[in-house]
Formats: sequence, C-alpha cells, structure tokens
Amino acid sequence: ILFLVYSAMAKSSLIEPDGGSLVDLLVPESERAMKISEAESFPKLTLTKIDLEWVHVLSEGWASPLKGFMREAEYLQSLHFNSLRINDGDPLVNMSLPIVLAIDDDAKLRIGSSTTVALLAPDSHLVATLTSIEIYKHNKEERIARTWGSTSPGLPYVEEVILPSGNWLIGGDLLVLDPVEYNDGLDHYRLSPKQLRIEFDRLGADAVFAFQLRNPVHNGHALLINDTRRKLLETGYENPILLLHPLGGFTKADDVPLRVRMEQHRKV
Amino acid sequence: ILFLVYSAMAKSSLIEPDGGSLVDLLVPESERAMKISEAESFPKLTLTKIDLEWVHVLSEGWASPLKGFMREAEYLQSLHFNSLRINDGDPLVNMSLPIVLAIDDDAKLRIGSSTTVALLAPDSHLVATLTSIEIYKHNKEERIARTWGSTSPGLPYVEEVILPSGNWLIGGDLLVLDPVEYNDGLDHYRLSPKQLRIEFDRLGADAVFAFQLRNPVHNGHALLINDTRRKLLETGYENPILLLHPLGGFTKADDVPLRVRMEQHRKV
Repeated sequence: ILFLVYSAMAKSSLIEPDGGSLVDLLVPESERAMKISEAESFPKLTLTKIDLEWVHVLSEGWASPLKGFMREAEYLQSLHFNSLRINDGDPLVNMSLPIVLAIDDDAKLRIGSSTTVALLAPDSHLVATLTSIEIYKHNKEERIARTWGSTSPGLPYVEEVILPSGNWLIGGDLLVLDPVEYNDGLDHYRLSPKQLRIEFDRLGADAVFAFQLRNPVHNGHALLINDTRRKLLETGYENPILLLHPLGGFTKADDVPLRVRMEQHRKV
Repeated sequence: ILFLVYSAMAKSSLIEPDGGSLVDLLVPESERAMKISEAESFPKLTLTKIDLEWVHVLSEGWASPLKGFMREAEYLQSLHFNSLRINDGDPLVNMSLPIVLAIDDDAKLRIGSSTTVALLAPDSHLVATLTSIEIYKHNKEERIARTWGSTSPGLPYVEEVILPSGNWLIGGDLLVLDPVEYNDGLDHYRLSPKQLRIEFDRLGADAVFAFQLRNPVHNGHALLINDTRRKLLETGYENPILLLHPLGGFTKADDVPLRVRMEQHRKV
C-alpha cells in the first residue's frame, strides 16, 4: 500500500504536477485524422498488454514529466538516481522505475533509419506514434540489479516481462491517437489526472488524501483512512476528499481480481 | 581514469568543498591524550587494511560531507540515489559508493549496548573512535546489485572485500586519534585537501585541473594534460595548476605498483 497526503489551503487543482505542467499526450480531435494517416507509412511495432498499460500511464501524465518511453539519458537517470530531471534547471522528480519499451533484433532491423514508429495494440489496431526515436541497448542484468537490488530468480515482473523482452529499448515522444480503454466494464472508474482535478474542484476539496491499494479494503485500511480524515479536519481543512486508488495492471498472481475489488470498494 | 576541471576566477581555495565546509576529523593535539584515555574503555574493533584506507579517506574530508562511516539513512541514500544529503536543506552531493564498515556477529555481540567503539589498525594500535554508533543489516546482495548493476562472479572488490566481510554495518561519527600513515616512503606525497588548498594558494593558481589515474602516465595522458592547460590559458586563466593524482589503495592485481608509478610520475 501507498499512503499519500496532498494538501493546499487553496483549490486542489492548484497543486503543481511533477515537473510543473500536466502531461496529456492524447492528440487533439482536430488533428487525429491527419496523424493517423501519417502513421500509416511508419514502421509498426505491436505492443504487449503491459506495454499498452504503460502507454496509458504515460498518455494521461501519471508519469509526469515523462512525455514518452524513456530515451537512454532518462533511463540511466532513473536507474542510477531513482530520479529524473529532463532538462537542466528543471526540478528533480522521483522516478524509481524505468518506463521503457523493449524491442527485439527483428524490430530494430525493420525500423532501420526511420525516426518514427507506429505503435499497435495487441489486437493490431493503431494506438500511438513515437517520434524522434532513440534505440539503445537493453542491458537486462543491470536493469534488474539496479531496480530490485537483486538478481535472484522468482521476481514475477522480471521473469514474465523483462527476461522474455527484446535486447533493445526504444524511447521517444509519444502521441496517443486512440485513448487506451480496457472494455472490462470498469473504464468509467479510470479518471485521468486532468479529470480528477476537475472532480476535486467540483467537490470543493481543500485537501485530497490518496489511498492506493492492491487488495480489498480491510478494517486496518478503514482506520487509517478515517484517522487521516480526522487529522486533516483538526489541522483546519474543512473538506478533505479521499482518493481511493485500487491498483490495476500487473499485480500478484494470487491477488483478488480488479473487478471483484472494484465491486467491494463500491459497496464500502 | 577520471578527468576533472575545477575553476574559479579567484583563489582556488575559495572553491566550496562538497557540502559547504572542509571535513577534518583529526582530533586537535590538545585533546588527544584525553580522547585516547577515554577510548581505552570502549569495545575494540580491529580494522582490515582496506577499512583503514577508508578511515584515511574520511578523516581528511575526501568523502566530504561525510563525517564518519555511513549510518543506514546515508547508506540507503548512496545506494538508491547515488547522492547524499545529510540534513534537510543541505545541497545534494554525488556519492555513488557506500563508505561503510562491516562487522561480524561476534563483534556486534561484543559491542552490545555501547554507543561508542574504538578502531584499531591491523597492527592493533589505536587509530580512531566511532561515536553515536548505529548498527544495521549488511544486505550484501543488494549492496552489490545496486553498486555494480550486476551480481556476476569475478568482481574483485566484491569477492575480496564485500563477500568475506561481516553481516552488519556500523556507522557513526569518526574521530581520528592518530593520523593514518603508510610508512611506505610515499607519505610525503599524500597531501590532505586542506594541505592542497594551501599549496594551490602558495603557487598562485587561478585554476586547478586534476588528472587521476591508476596507471603510469602515457603519451595520451600527456596530450590530454597539455591540451587542458592550453584551453585554460585560452579561456583567460593565467596560472592553471595540474593536480596529478595517482590512485593508491585497492587497484587491479596486475596494475603497476604505486611505488613504481610514483617514481615514474616524479621523473615525468
């Protein structure tokens, strides 16, 4: 679990996003047709389900200030400093996990000297483009050792995602042509940072406290949540709002499925 | 090799040490007898040759702003961020290598609830004390993985220093009672940062460029050194001074010995 308190005496929407401005990589409706038509001539890469989830994370600014999959300079900062500063003078942002896209030797050959690629969902429909690309070596042992502090067998993300992936990483500026949806009946719960800011303002929040969890809510969680609300009220906030944030995507194999957890959260 | 250029339009001694002030952990002469007498009642730890070299590094401020072997908060910062900030608000300093002192289970037991220990050189003479100590777990796999980005066998410092060392790390404030000397006929070359600053001022340096190397000086090095001097003169400096800095201590098994390299440097 992760427990965060964001607070401001003014509107919650006034809190600065990491890196200063909200990242939104979805192409404006007016440019969509043109961008899609352009992308037809680009070399194509088919994403895995997990790659597509990272496109989602990046596209709505959850990995702000990143504006695409990491190029090597960003990757090495994340790996060595657990932090990211994209341009000299920018504020330093926590970024302990590299957000990268792996490709294999064949894909690298197919891309050749192209500076752009089109990204296809696992079902082959066009999702996004990556421009001003950079391809660099995927040193898996170093990535694993520096991310986990261990190279012992049995780490699920290592064995299921990293080891089977390609020997190269491709970074660049991401432009999302088609918003990522999961069509699992839960998409209406998936608010973007921009939508959340609007919602917090609508609710008149003067503080937002977030509770992120991988499991059903239990009594200990409820105690923490209520206690935080009480402390915020005592501190002088008048309308603290809870953001209950269940983790989707890659969780443990024996975790309660997201759909069941959402149903439980709804009832709670 | 490492190649650094420090420059200032004013005296080189005006360049700020990492962290703001020069670290000097040698006890003042006037307090020495008292501190030595105090240390007699402390639990004793016998240092390895390499531990003693780290005491030397720490005592003269080469690892500024560190004032002793790392406590856990400093160790984790170094391991995870390759950087160090000792107190909130301090400047962030590069520190990619943990400077730690390992002890075994017996030593931990012997220290018990003592908050101070005395450090003995390999020949058993009293060298230093460590006060306000903190003992914490030495997770060797994590240390190796995060420092080298690899856990592959064959890394000399890993196999010769880390793996045979104890399962605990001890951090604290270091006070050096007896300046570290090697009695190898080369001690007069080993200037402290404080002595170097005095020397640069004496020479009237308006820029200092440092050349650190593990090998004898070869023609490529000489070219780099002369080229740097030329560029500094072109930039407007009038008296750039070279700091030629051969590495002692832990080097590769087949490296040319320090004594031979010093002889060569002297001739050059």
